[in-house]
Amino acid sequence: MSDPTAVKAALRAQQIETPSWAYGNSGTRFKVFAQPGVPRDPFEKLQDASQVHAFTGAAPSVALHIPWDKVDDYAALAAYAAERGVRIGAINSNVFQDDDYKLGSVTNPDPKVRRKATDHLLECVDIMDATGSKDLKLWFSDGTNYPGQDDIAARQDRLAEALREVYDRLGDDQRMLLEYKLFEPAFYTTDVPDWGTAYAHCLELGPKAQVVVDTGHHAPGTNIEFIVAFLLRAGKLGGFDFNSRFYADDDLMVGSADPFQLFRIMFEVHKNGGLKPETGVAFMLDQCHNIEAKIPGQIRSVMNVQEATAKALLVDQEALAAAQRSGDVLAANAVLMDAYNTDVRPLLAEVRAEAGIDPDPMAAYARSGWAEKIAAERVGGQQAGWGA
Amino acid sequence: MSDPTAVKAALRAQQIETPSWAYGNSGTRFKVFAQPGVPRDPFEKLQDASQVHAFTGAAPSVALHIPWDKVDDYAALAAYAAERGVRIGAINSNVFQDDDYKLGSVTNPDPKVRRKATDHLLECVDIMDATGSKDLKLWFSDGTNYPGQDDIAARQDRLAEALREVYDRLGDDQRMLLEYKLFEPAFYTTDVPDWGTAYAHCLELGPKAQVVVDTGHHAPGTNIEFIVAFLLRAGKLGGFDFNSRFYADDDLMVGSADPFQLFRIMFEVHKNGGLKPETGVAFMLDQCHNIEAKIPGQIRSVMNVQEATAKALLVDQEALAAAQRSGDVLAANAVLMDAYNTDVRPLLAEVRAEAGIDPDPMAAYARSGWAEKIAAERVGGQQAGWGA
Amino acid sequence: MSDPTAVKAALRAQQIETPSWAYGNSGTRFKVFAQPGVPRDPFEKLQDASQVHAFTGAAPSVALHIPWDKVDDYAALAAYAAERGVRIGAINSNVFQDDDYKLGSVTNPDPKVRRKATDHLLECVDIMDATGSKDLKLWFSDGTNYPGQDDIAARQDRLAEALREVYDRLGDDQRMLLEYKLFEPAFYTTDVPDWGTAYAHCLELGPKAQVVVDTGHHAPGTNIEFIVAFLLRAGKLGGFDFNSRFYADDDLMVGSADPFQLFRIMFEVHKNGGLKPETGVAFMLDQCHNIEAKIPGQIRSVMNVQEATAKALLVDQEALAAAQRSGDVLAANAVLMDAYNTDVRPLLAEVRAEAGIDPDPMAAYARSGWAEKIAAERVGGQQAGWGA
Amino acid sequence: MSDPTAVKAALRAQQIETPSWAYGNSGTRFKVFAQPGVPRDPFEKLQDASQVHAFTGAAPSVALHIPWDKVDDYAALAAYAAERGVRIGAINSNVFQDDDYKLGSVTNPDPKVRRKATDHLLECVDIMDATGSKDLKLWFSDGTNYPGQDDIAARQDRLAEALREVYDRLGDDQRMLLEYKLFEPAFYTTDVPDWGTAYAHCLELGPKAQVVVDTGHHAPGTNIEFIVAFLLRAGKLGGFDFNSRFYADDDLMVGSADPFQLFRIMFEVHKNGGLKPETGVAFMLDQCHNIEAKIPGQIRSVMNVQEATAKALLVDQEALAAAQRSGDVLAANAVLMDAYNTDVRPLLAEVRAEAGIDPDPMAAYARSGWAEKIAAERVGGQQAGWGA
Repeated sequence: MSDPTAVKAALRAQQIETPSWAYGNSGTRFKVFAQPGVPRDPFEKLQDASQVHAFTGAAPSVALHIPWDKVDDYAALAAYAAERGVRIGAINSNVFQDDDYKLGSVTNPDPKVRRKATDHLLECVDIMDATGSKDLKLWFSDGTNYPGQDDIAARQDRLAEALREVYDRLGDDQRMLLEYKLFEPAFYTTDVPDWGTAYAHCLELGPKAQVVVDTGHHAPGTNIEFIVAFLLRAGKLGGFDFNSRFYADDDLMVGSADPFQLFRIMFEVHKNGGLKPETGVAFMLDQCHNIEAKIPGQIRSVMNVQEATAKALLVDQEALAAAQRSGDVLAANAVLMDAYNTDVRPLLAEVRAEAGIDPDPMAAYARSGWAEKIAAERVGGQQAGWGA
Repeated sequence: MSDPTAVKAALRAQQIETPSWAYGNSGTRFKVFAQPGVPRDPFEKLQDASQVHAFTGAAPSVALHIPWDKVDDYAALAAYAAERGVRIGAINSNVFQDDDYKLGSVTNPDPKVRRKATDHLLECVDIMDATGSKDLKLWFSDGTNYPGQDDIAARQDRLAEALREVYDRLGDDQRMLLEYKLFEPAFYTTDVPDWGTAYAHCLELGPKAQVVVDTGHHAPGTNIEFIVAFLLRAGKLGGFDFNSRFYADDDLMVGSADPFQLFRIMFEVHKNGGLKPETGVAFMLDQCHNIEAKIPGQIRSVMNVQEATAKALLVDQEALAAAQRSGDVLAANAVLMDAYNTDVRPLLAEVRAEAGIDPDPMAAYARSGWAEKIAAERVGGQQAGWGA
Repeated sequence: MSDPTAVKAALRAQQIETPSWAYGNSGTRFKVFAQPGVPRDPFEKLQDASQVHAFTGAAPSVALHIPWDKVDDYAALAAYAAERGVRIGAINSNVFQDDDYKLGSVTNPDPKVRRKATDHLLECVDIMDATGSKDLKLWFSDGTNYPGQDDIAARQDRLAEALREVYDRLGDDQRMLLEYKLFEPAFYTTDVPDWGTAYAHCLELGPKAQVVVDTGHHAPGTNIEFIVAFLLRAGKLGGFDFNSRFYADDDLMVGSADPFQLFRIMFEVHKNGGLKPETGVAFMLDQCHNIEAKIPGQIRSVMNVQEATAKALLVDQEALAAAQRSGDVLAANAVLMDAYNTDVRPLLAEVRAEAGIDPDPMAAYARSGWAEKIAAERVGGQQAGWGA
Repeated sequence: MSDPTAVKAALRAQQIETPSWAYGNSGTRFKVFAQPGVPRDPFEKLQDASQVHAFTGAAPSVALHIPWDKVDDYAALAAYAAERGVRIGAINSNVFQDDDYKLGSVTNPDPKVRRKATDHLLECVDIMDATGSKDLKLWFSDGTNYPGQDDIAARQDRLAEALREVYDRLGDDQRMLLEYKLFEPAFYTTDVPDWGTAYAHCLELGPKAQVVVDTGHHAPGTNIEFIVAFLLRAGKLGGFDFNSRFYADDDLMVGSADPFQLFRIMFEVHKNGGLKPETGVAFMLDQCHNIEAKIPGQIRSVMNVQEATAKALLVDQEALAAAQRSGDVLAANAVLMDAYNTDVRPLLAEVRAEAGIDPDPMAAYARSGWAEKIAAERVGGQQAGWGA
């Protein structure tokens, strides 16, 4: 796709979902550092998300996390979003912050806890109905800390049973997106530790179940773009939770730790059709801005995904295929690197300008006064945060 | 299974396959250190393997590697084995040591190379027919070293096509065991990098295709016993390539780097029925004795697997299940650790004595004079080794 | 040391320090699960620690964490400990939970924050004077999350300056123990990421500065016993923070993830003289009992260290040295494994019985009624926890 | 250094050393794939190295490996190099490919083997005298494969003794560069596993001993640029062995796996004065072109280092320092990323053109006919390779 018009069109079409929790306080187990102006309720989170969309033109939807974003009237929440130019994205379930879940949620040895957890997942589908959300995103913190603590295979049975019940509740145009994670908060076993486990369950469930790749949830040395290519080939890539990591699940801004990896991922997405809207691949951010400002942190992240996508679109696929066929390792690598080494910032500035947006979203946001405004106005009440 | 008779019976029944290549020279990319008395042909390898079986009573089969163990008359080779009390085990294909395979074998961009590689796999099935082997073990070194070098998804298509052709050639009582490996010798992508990829292909192929878990082929932090439990639950665990590692695919003696991990693996095998012969789980060694003596290295490894199995059999499963149900994390862990902390060497000495074998296989082999005999007799000719 | 009397004497002499924070609530960034009966102040923590000592006979000192264990009268706290048969151990500084420390403490770009942090360290030395503690244990969460965030070398200069000031304040019989950690809570750089950095600073400071090895603070694949042997050879091993990990800094019970590694560590300690009191190596626990009961979790951990130590003491060092000299790899490894495979629980039961303690500390504690007592009595008030 | 003249001058001044062994065959433990036209002796290696210099203008020196590059007359070899516009760089010792070294070289339990190994190191200093080389580069494959195999601390004593003897033999303007490596070919302990060990020995030896950072020799998650900054601050960074890796010591082309990491490393080099010739930091390649063409592989690698260096030079250090002082995490990161995201290929093309070199070294080499010439002429004889 060296055709500049097509590249620009693809960039204009790309939508990146931001998560409501990125606007609230977050931290590590050692400390949560509060920031001025942080939202105090889901409505204020939507205000902030709409700022990210206003300055990037690329973030029209907002993921919710239940119960963090619980409200009495979800239709009103959806309407509030629409007024601000955004919409409700994926509904994220949370079965890890109640005391009951100490030894697991849907895989807990205690059937009462499993029932409670599954009911919460079903409630999330209700919220999808109420908000128009199409995606249920499931991440389970379930697992064990010590060898022998529980029965690994039995927990798979319990997991399968809960997933089946929720899957059967989904509407025709709703999907279940199953996330995997190597470790944390469980330290010995995790019940969905890798893409293989998520894939196997999704395969068994049916076409509405797909895998979510969180870029921070892998063992060291894992080739993430291989997984992306494999899942797209199998029709089972539901989407991404984007963030970046140097060590474990650091939840840093996407593209900040290894921009080349992000480019390789986006290249496999593009190469295997994943940028086409009909493939349904969702591009979602899932980050914690522990020490940096949150709204600009999201804006920068959206831009990082766009830059990686632009480079992926610039790869000369014909030249690449020819070099690959000829077995010329250096030439094939050089075709890819040519695109990566290109400075795509002018191109994206153009795309923005043509869409009537400031070509420099970071500077435009800084000038807008929004940060000062919320710091001044959002005083009193309880800042939102994980668990708030 | 705290019933001592049943524990002993299970230990007596366990069979561990040794690989012909463990008896030849091996090394790292830096150096192969030759050892005195190393076999010069497949027949001498079978002699050595039969020593391991003679002193352990637990290693009645020998895996072959083609073309390293190519002979004119495979029936004669099988008969030679039988005379020495052993039999031919899995046939291991080798599509990584011809110059043609520089850019891959069954996934090579060049269809001629793919044809050659697939033909080799089919030839291995012929050898299975000739030797009575039931298992075709496939490990592919295929992959790429540099981003862009080849098309990840296209390589999956080529892989699937070759596997299908070979699968369809299998006889009714023959299996295809597909191995995965994170990296090496390919350094960027590997075409079967993880259990998920192997599982997905095996599922598509059918019931005769199963996954092999090589204990040294995982990313750091991977929970291997989870994979074992998952695959057994899904009926897709074909067997093990046992060895151990501190860093990468070190191919050290099984149980020497992390004996607790080996115990946990054997516990999941036992817990999920994998010790029952009808499950068909093959316990194979796949190690490189680069600096230690090879035959005693194999004997020690067989003993290490037996000790881990004995401890797994000693776990009080009723007490474990009760502790798990009650949510008592420390108690459940303690039940497992009680078995692990038991010194099972006296029990295994008894099992051996009852089977008419010396209770101390290492000492008995050392006294036997075999090492001195082969060092004296096997002079001249070319020592066997990787590629020899 | 196959002399049983000497082995027993060494086991009787070993002291393992428990940390006050192990008795309070802890958790992951996702959730802290509260437990019944958790202490509400430093005095109650000392009560619990004294239970661990009462049932093991091996945990006579308790590490404090300032400000978590801040009291008005430290002499009174020390006296309270003495009444219960324990004493105050290392003083642990905390320069990571104030809002000021968001971008670092002693390495912060802002000199006012550095001054505040260094003053806190000096205050900890005052508390050492008041409590009779001999060891100042320093762990810094300092680091950066993003490339470019701060100047790596400048932060080293600031670190060196603060350490020097504190070092010069130490009394003659006081030590500074400097801990290193690969990552978390900082995700890009850590200012003391590895033993090399800690060692270099300690060397520059002088003989009262030594390195602390936290067994959970290393990159995957790091050989911890090598570091232990190296530091003992250099006279720079101050002590251990014991815990165990499967992935990152999981802070599980020591010996629960890799008991063989713990044995190898204790073997190097013993082999290089580190069990002799005059070496001054401190054996401290640093764990988080997130889901298991806290007091029995500490008892089990003390026992795990004792078992690893017993096995290390049982290694036949003469036989080992002879095998090493002869270059017999398998024989040398076998000498070590013989000790590891021994069930040392009967030996430790004997040591306890001879010391007038119940041979089964876990059962004895369970029978004691302490857990029920504190659950009933410690109601109202605020449970202690990280930051409490 | 936003001054374009200064940036260009720095780029013109940078020299990157290529290793003689990069021109010979190499491979993995599984297979060495031979390439057409590979040198058959050290003289032909110098021919190839001079091509890399001719087309890049930045690779004027060639590292030798003894005994791979043993010749009768080293002065003649040096003269041959000079005629072709290059010179002899570092002398690399090899104490890992003789049968004697199976259990170690300078750390071997056998004093005779240690003597032989140390003598080889001394011989390398003789070769330095004969060739005018200033640097002795030491990498030891020494280590153990199994716990108990040898005494960790005793091996450190032996290492220190050998290093001392060699250090004392160095001339006034000669250096000893000590390399560390996490693992391989030893799989349990390595005698110089990390920068801390190398640093401690160099510190003890004196000012002529410095540490070499091989970018592929670290545990997963290690922050290499931190080590670089630390060593430069301590005056102990001798130089680099550049290559890149996805998993272990893959020895791929530098900058091909993580170009952002290479940029961060070069930024710390530049920031801490390491680009100034008087600092003496040596920039050496150490790679294995197992499947790609060797001479273009070296050319591409030299260019990759140059591009990373150019980006490092373009960082606006004043703006960076201001952002760091103000604690603006996003702004500081953005200053760094601005430089990284710049396409520096036009700038380097200019630098080359101004130096009278073709702006596109890869294309110029391809056109030169050298590859075809050596493929045609270098027939017969034995191709050089590891051990050849």
